[in-house]
Amino acid sequence: MAERLIRNEGVESSTLSAGSMSAVIINIGSELLSGDVINKNFLFLTQKLQEEGIDIVAQIIVGDEREHLTRILKDSLSHYSQIFVTGGLGATEDDITREAISSSVNKPLVLDKKLLKEIKSRYEKWGKRFLPVHERMAKIPEGAIPVTNYVGAAPGFYLECEGRQIFALPGVPEEMRDMWGRIRTFLVREKNVIIRKRVLKCWGLSESEVNGKIKSFLEKDNPRLGITVNPYGVEIRIKAKGGSPRQAEEILEKVERNIKDTIGDNIYAADTTDMEKVVGMLLTLKKKSISLAESCTGGLISHRLTNVPGSSQYFTGGIIVYSNKSKIEKLGVDPEILEKYGAVSKETAREMAVRIREKMGTDLGIAVTGIAGPAGGTREKPVGLVYTALSEANNCWVEEHRFIGERISIKIKSSQAALDLVRRYLLELLKK
Amino acid sequence: MAERLIRNEGVESSTLSAGSMSAVIINIGSELLSGDVINKNFLFLTQKLQEEGIDIVAQIIVGDEREHLTRILKDSLSHYSQIFVTGGLGATEDDITREAISSSVNKPLVLDKKLLKEIKSRYEKWGKRFLPVHERMAKIPEGAIPVTNYVGAAPGFYLECEGRQIFALPGVPEEMRDMWGRIRTFLVREKNVIIRKRVLKCWGLSESEVNGKIKSFLEKDNPRLGITVNPYGVEIRIKAKGGSPRQAEEILEKVERNIKDTIGDNIYAADTTDMEKVVGMLLTLKKKSISLAESCTGGLISHRLTNVPGSSQYFTGGIIVYSNKSKIEKLGVDPEILEKYGAVSKETAREMAVRIREKMGTDLGIAVTGIAGPAGGTREKPVGLVYTALSEANNCWVEEHRFIGERISIKIKSSQAALDLVRRYLLELLKK
Repeated sequence: MAERLIRNEGVESSTLSAGSMSAVIINIGSELLSGDVINKNFLFLTQKLQEEGIDIVAQIIVGDEREHLTRILKDSLSHYSQIFVTGGLGATEDDITREAISSSVNKPLVLDKKLLKEIKSRYEKWGKRFLPVHERMAKIPEGAIPVTNYVGAAPGFYLECEGRQIFALPGVPEEMRDMWGRIRTFLVREKNVIIRKRVLKCWGLSESEVNGKIKSFLEKDNPRLGITVNPYGVEIRIKAKGGSPRQAEEILEKVERNIKDTIGDNIYAADTTDMEKVVGMLLTLKKKSISLAESCTGGLISHRLTNVPGSSQYFTGGIIVYSNKSKIEKLGVDPEILEKYGAVSKETAREMAVRIREKMGTDLGIAVTGIAGPAGGTREKPVGLVYTALSEANNCWVEEHRFIGERISIKIKSSQAALDLVRRYLLELLKK
Repeated sequence: MAERLIRNEGVESSTLSAGSMSAVIINIGSELLSGDVINKNFLFLTQKLQEEGIDIVAQIIVGDEREHLTRILKDSLSHYSQIFVTGGLGATEDDITREAISSSVNKPLVLDKKLLKEIKSRYEKWGKRFLPVHERMAKIPEGAIPVTNYVGAAPGFYLECEGRQIFALPGVPEEMRDMWGRIRTFLVREKNVIIRKRVLKCWGLSESEVNGKIKSFLEKDNPRLGITVNPYGVEIRIKAKGGSPRQAEEILEKVERNIKDTIGDNIYAADTTDMEKVVGMLLTLKKKSISLAESCTGGLISHRLTNVPGSSQYFTGGIIVYSNKSKIEKLGVDPEILEKYGAVSKETAREMAVRIREKMGTDLGIAVTGIAGPAGGTREKPVGLVYTALSEANNCWVEEHRFIGERISIKIKSSQAALDLVRRYLLELLKK
């Protein structure tokens, strides 16, 4: 047991030994189970704990039911070494966290007089009446260290119990974030274990293809790899553990290099960088301007490009040509081509890319035409058939895609394919 | 144990008795613990289960670690009667759900030949190669009922075990949503409690204004109300409980009517309907065509309009005019107006709306110009200053907005304001 430490700012670190640490986040509140609230506390804590090198192995949401929470806390105490609890610390009947923690660790709730005084003086300062019911907030499990809430009324607390660390934090996100800075000093970090993470983003390969290419890396425990898929492509998640920051980074970088060697140019970005940022950066670097003629993506590519601050440097504008009429009248597409090959064809895509480049006077012209569905597909030209084209002064490239999914998913995949075509052009990966 | 039922459409309901039901959602995937992914499957399932009158008592996220998942599954089997598992059903090494469920219920995985054939034929249809590794997806626990995945490759399954229901669903949200319709027929529901929900969406009022207007309804337990805010506006969430579907619906409808009377035309949609669908429906109804000239929204409005299937009926196209040059050259904006009032002004917005309508030959012309930031703001014209304009044959309306937030948030709010202007025009709410 840690002795009672000076609380709030300047707390000393605990003397708990750090064995194999595993952390769980328990978010309490029926509203979190309603399906209409984003669990902001979980997202915040996960990011903060990762920065500390602490890995979350599970997250649990429970409602405001005391026995249920007590059981989950007991179970967590026997399987995880660090337990982060948010919510249920207020003064109302459904604030059950104090009682549940008290039962699960077999320590009675005791009134902390100093804490009570502090809470009372806050109410006075706010000009609000302190009610008898508010006294509950000053009761914490025996041996716990209270942590002041500077934003709201309910304090948090920290408790060590049989080698476990329990952190009780408020449920209101801004109170929780404020308290984090003070409670984090209690964190026992796994000694000599530093975690570094990376996400590598691929386009142009299926999940199975990526899996096949990096199969040999997937079986290892350190670095640990995972693969996920979404309309923006396949993501490879790497987690490396090391005895020092340098060692963890070396492990991470080695496997990252190996994966890059194996997968090559299909990797388009890492971590929080997305395709539009990569393309924007390359356009800036190569001093190229770009214009867009969008049909089935209906403005999504322009939207994505203009999400990047400073995009007005390389993106002057685009045209959304949703009908054949507008393709002919606004873009100048040859009606004979449209008639002969159809709106969704290699030839029309090429024509659109050339025309938009000429019309807008840019270095590059991009075009997309396809069938996003759900209607409009035929046997020969099914939903998901999409052509992307890139035109420059001397050349034009057209690519055919067959995407699977719902309308919005096909739009996203089409936008990703078009932007990736620009990326590969700017990296001089396209064959002339 | 349920016997093996006809799968997919037309499945019979289970014969399990509905005692005191308690449901848990287990979402599998290390990426969900990374803090950078929203758990869409949880939000979707919670909403759907509530519509069925099933209350979620806990939600758990676990990574791709088999022993850990098996333990959590075993624990859940001894405490909850319905277990909904998402993710980990794919063909890669870290897809561990099949194995973990098989261990936790002590039923071996068996290869379902019919399922294998089905998966193979899907690969063939997609023109993709079926690899040996894909065979894993056709193995399900003995006694489980496979459920076809029409969107992706990996099937789901349903299993009854010692009075518990286990639903194994894909992790990719659109696959999961698609499968829901087929797997929900297995659900055993608790009798005598029916829940009905509604979300009313408002634009043009602040959170405090909405709160003030519906304050008297907020204190009740049934129907229970909540208010949330996002860049698309303020949402009022209603949850009504009743002893029968009819009773629950009556309670819901009564409060909904009262709220609509209080808030009026600021409510633009309910539930899953969004602004672009409302505008699309009104444009179809009133047989009006529309064209767009977007500056700071950079294609987002076009993207949103074209997310609606069938939008080609009223939306012929749009122009993204990001620079002054393109505003003059491509749209025909009077350079004198641009010079005199600036690109972000009432006058330029008006000019853009008139010009795009003329140029595209549509009934309505919409324009947006503003400063999305983070750079480009001045003291007089700060980041967030946005003008939206609507032009028809005889009139033009321009509105000024001052939005707060990050670049993407300002883009969303601007698109919402422009679409709402169209909505109010079509509902004849604008003053001439």
